[in-house]
Amino acid sequence: MTSEQAPAQSPVESPLPLSKYSKRVTIDSISGRPDGGPGLIGRRVVVGGWVKSSREFKMEAAAPPPAAGGPKDISCVEVLQTKLPFFRSIIKVFGGEQRIRDKIDSIIPKPPQPSISILEIGDGSCVSSLQVVVDSALAWPAQVMPNGTCILVEGAFQKPSLPDRKQKHTIELKADKLLHLGTVDHDRYPLSKKRLPLELLRDSAHFRPRTTTVASVVRIRNGLTQAAFAFFRENGFLHVQTPVTTVTDASGGARESLLHMEATLPDGVKAETIRASIKEKSKKIEELKRSGSNKEALAAAVQDLKKTTELAELVEGEQRRTRTYLSASGRLHLESHASALGNVCSFGPRFRACSPESRKVLAEIWMVEIEVAFSELKDSMQCAMDFLKSICRWIMQSSVEDLKFMAKRVDKHVVDRLQLIAEGPFEKITYTEAVKVLKQAKNERTIEWGAPLSEEHESVLAEEIYKKPVIVYNHPKELKPFNARCNDDGETCAAFDVIVPKVGTVIRGSQSEERLNMLSGRIKELGLEKKQYEWYLDLRRHGAVKCSGFSFAFDTFVLYATGLNDVRDATPFPRSIGQPNN
Amino acid sequence: MTSEQAPAQSPVESPLPLSKYSKRVTIDSISGRPDGGPGLIGRRVVVGGWVKSSREFKMEAAAPPPAAGGPKDISCVEVLQTKLPFFRSIIKVFGGEQRIRDKIDSIIPKPPQPSISILEIGDGSCVSSLQVVVDSALAWPAQVMPNGTCILVEGAFQKPSLPDRKQKHTIELKADKLLHLGTVDHDRYPLSKKRLPLELLRDSAHFRPRTTTVASVVRIRNGLTQAAFAFFRENGFLHVQTPVTTVTDASGGARESLLHMEATLPDGVKAETIRASIKEKSKKIEELKRSGSNKEALAAAVQDLKKTTELAELVEGEQRRTRTYLSASGRLHLESHASALGNVCSFGPRFRACSPESRKVLAEIWMVEIEVAFSELKDSMQCAMDFLKSICRWIMQSSVEDLKFMAKRVDKHVVDRLQLIAEGPFEKITYTEAVKVLKQAKNERTIEWGAPLSEEHESVLAEEIYKKPVIVYNHPKELKPFNARCNDDGETCAAFDVIVPKVGTVIRGSQSEERLNMLSGRIKELGLEKKQYEWYLDLRRHGAVKCSGFSFAFDTFVLYATGLNDVRDATPFPRSIGQPNN
Repeated sequence: MTSEQAPAQSPVESPLPLSKYSKRVTIDSISGRPDGGPGLIGRRVVVGGWVKSSREFKMEAAAPPPAAGGPKDISCVEVLQTKLPFFRSIIKVFGGEQRIRDKIDSIIPKPPQPSISILEIGDGSCVSSLQVVVDSALAWPAQVMPNGTCILVEGAFQKPSLPDRKQKHTIELKADKLLHLGTVDHDRYPLSKKRLPLELLRDSAHFRPRTTTVASVVRIRNGLTQAAFAFFRENGFLHVQTPVTTVTDASGGARESLLHMEATLPDGVKAETIRASIKEKSKKIEELKRSGSNKEALAAAVQDLKKTTELAELVEGEQRRTRTYLSASGRLHLESHASALGNVCSFGPRFRACSPESRKVLAEIWMVEIEVAFSELKDSMQCAMDFLKSICRWIMQSSVEDLKFMAKRVDKHVVDRLQLIAEGPFEKITYTEAVKVLKQAKNERTIEWGAPLSEEHESVLAEEIYKKPVIVYNHPKELKPFNARCNDDGETCAAFDVIVPKVGTVIRGSQSEERLNMLSGRIKELGLEKKQYEWYLDLRRHGAVKCSGFSFAFDTFVLYATGLNDVRDATPFPRSIGQPNN
Repeated sequence: MTSEQAPAQSPVESPLPLSKYSKRVTIDSISGRPDGGPGLIGRRVVVGGWVKSSREFKMEAAAPPPAAGGPKDISCVEVLQTKLPFFRSIIKVFGGEQRIRDKIDSIIPKPPQPSISILEIGDGSCVSSLQVVVDSALAWPAQVMPNGTCILVEGAFQKPSLPDRKQKHTIELKADKLLHLGTVDHDRYPLSKKRLPLELLRDSAHFRPRTTTVASVVRIRNGLTQAAFAFFRENGFLHVQTPVTTVTDASGGARESLLHMEATLPDGVKAETIRASIKEKSKKIEELKRSGSNKEALAAAVQDLKKTTELAELVEGEQRRTRTYLSASGRLHLESHASALGNVCSFGPRFRACSPESRKVLAEIWMVEIEVAFSELKDSMQCAMDFLKSICRWIMQSSVEDLKFMAKRVDKHVVDRLQLIAEGPFEKITYTEAVKVLKQAKNERTIEWGAPLSEEHESVLAEEIYKKPVIVYNHPKELKPFNARCNDDGETCAAFDVIVPKVGTVIRGSQSEERLNMLSGRIKELGLEKKQYEWYLDLRRHGAVKCSGFSFAFDTFVLYATGLNDVRDATPFPRSIGQPNN
């Protein structure tokens, strides 16, 4: 479909930077210019993107049809092959393009009159789109106008040439070469209609980045990713890629990590096969007994069954051994590296068997995790605050256009909310104070000491009472993982949650229990399988250090930064249990 | 174990930057000074780390025992509690610390004579260690001298005060406050001996970052991670977190992705339970038949069995649906975002059912993946070269000390090899040329057209024939995933491998097949389940774009950058199938 000819773009001709590895100019380098574009009039460029909206301008005079008048590097037949499977088969039957061209020209209805397609195209580089005009002599309106059509065109910038009530654009690109065309089957394309609600877009995770909203969300996610990495770099955190598959249930007492995986052993003997064999052999023995056959045959069969049973036990043992969890947290593993290297961090997928109905978490969620050696609870609370402030400041600087768009389209408070974290103070209260304050607040959402804070309680604290981010610390130890350090009161532990308005808890942190006897005691108290924590206990047996750190729910925070309400709209491929469809 | 008192470190007193979130000075900020340290003499700091080696210097005169003469913020009893579980129980029985102290003093053998422990401590911030001297009045040699002991001390820098044949240090820290002590059970600590071979360290993944070599490897990994992110940022790649759990087998024809996971459905009905019920019901029917009971009861039982059987089928179908893969590649998912946003990238864990014996790959491996819209094979080959050059240049600048150490301890060619990629040209040959060249090379490792290049072939190409990185492209389509674009010859496809000396293939890339009919044809030819690729085919049905990209085996490349020979030594928590132990 595409010309092999190199596009006529050269640095001398145009000051626009080429997109890396695709020899085209991206739209952000046009719309992002101080003059907004007009300075480019007359320049030639190659631009590619997907049609976001279009209109047709019909002309009076007749013009030659595309097959004759179009550029040589894209033939009518090639376009037809994409558009009309029926014609593809005809072409095959007739065996050649030239022979069939006249025939097709006589079958396909020609556009009634020459016209110009006026396309708004986006390439994902920014919110803005570029207006591209395509003469029907270059491509038929029916080919290029449907939303979602992909085009790569070469042309020159000019002043908008056709009447436009909205007067959105100061320049447009007049295409004179069509380098690539990816058509759309309008009736089957799920994004044919404009402004579909986000709920409907969820069924089309593979297409929805083509919408302006989801594209902005992806760019804001990218900004948050870069922001996190900048924080790590500036504060001397070493990246450690912690494992997804693990035998250590990092949630400890919380028992949230119900996802496990099974390795299909290549060429491995299956316990099921052996069990089936055992049944058969048992049956055979029964038959032998019934038929009263000789004792030797019976003894041999019994011996054979015994061996098989032993094998089955072995294989089943092996398979149990290979049953591993998908990690719910990388913090235990990180701690081993902090206990040698100081400040360490990780950014990767974590897994929870959460409710498929949750709007704030998913079964698979990305987390930033940080662990600091020679540090205590107050240090990791400070680190958590600095981290949040740092990433909010970063995206307020890096994602101005996208935030503006989200404020306009999704949630007008989105920038204020980032500002609240970036510049304002955090409230710091103990769990016990939080319970007291919630009881005093005259509302029906009461809470007794020892119960977890519900989403509603979190919302009352951060949105109604303090109206800012709230750090709640020193929770009852029963509410936190087994390894949170026990406080001297014997009832609470050195853990904290950072609760922000709108989405609730985005960070959970703690100081780890470095005292071997205390940690062993907790493992016993909670009835956890001690064996899987032996390596972790080892860190206390030899060269123990005080460590603290936290987990940051990346995908949940995207809701805070974008104003969206459902994490399924904020995650590229959201996974609930048993629900992936791609 | 630790004093609650804040360490006496202040910016006015010392120009040394404090480690973030742990109120201590890191060793790299001491050893990294232009003067190497002496300018710090007289300054007071807090330093923490783990003992890497130690010696004792015995003094003539007698000194008071630590319990009396030590600092007030760490009591003898506290140290005993850590060291001697037996005394802990005594203390409990007697009910108080003061009452028991005299008793302990009379039981515990005192050090025969006063001495000074001279410790080399490392904190993971750099290769260098710091010499810390601890008087026996502060802590007994037996407590602080074992390798692996963790200490946090406050003190002042001074000129090395004791005779040292090696004269390695120009300054040392004289400790006068012990803020934290994490002792080692010398007999059980797996790293008690110095310079253990890497193979032995594999059993102690949680301790091995305390060795100088593995710590350097972690820092070089960190450098490579930062380098990759810098490349993404500079070249406008948007981060997309692709899913780990997926129903799409991204390896397509390659069938490498044998790892699957099972979600434990909360409250879900298990097919096994129902199957057991079916058996029972069948038995009941047999009994009813045998006993000759009334026809109505039999008909009811048969009807009941039928219903249960239907339910079983439903449930089993449901469970099949929830059986998902652990993703072998994120490129298919990335392509959906490239087909809207242009340049996208991903960095995350990928899974293969590889041999547990492999020295170059693991079941769980981190990959950098890149996908570029409006690009063809040659573009992604260029991108792959630029990426490799960029990350090699980065770590040559950022990891000077670590590379020097690896060159000294592991592989003297490690910097030359990075230089080879960073500055030299790459050889680019087609697969067909590679086969020809390998045949001409007079050695026994012959190859016929159509066969995959073995590790030996790769080594001959990159190390013997070309002596530089080699890009082999246009492979027979049978050797590459289903979605590599078919070339016009009908036999090869637009794919490439980047082969480097020492480790072989580190990048696999391709241009995706954007033609719907061609892609559907390949899926049919290879007998793949079309259903799971429908969403991917959709990208061709609507607004298709030419895409190309690659996967970079991060962990394998760490071998290239460190000179190590086994990926299990280069990965924090290496996972082979069924083998995780933490």
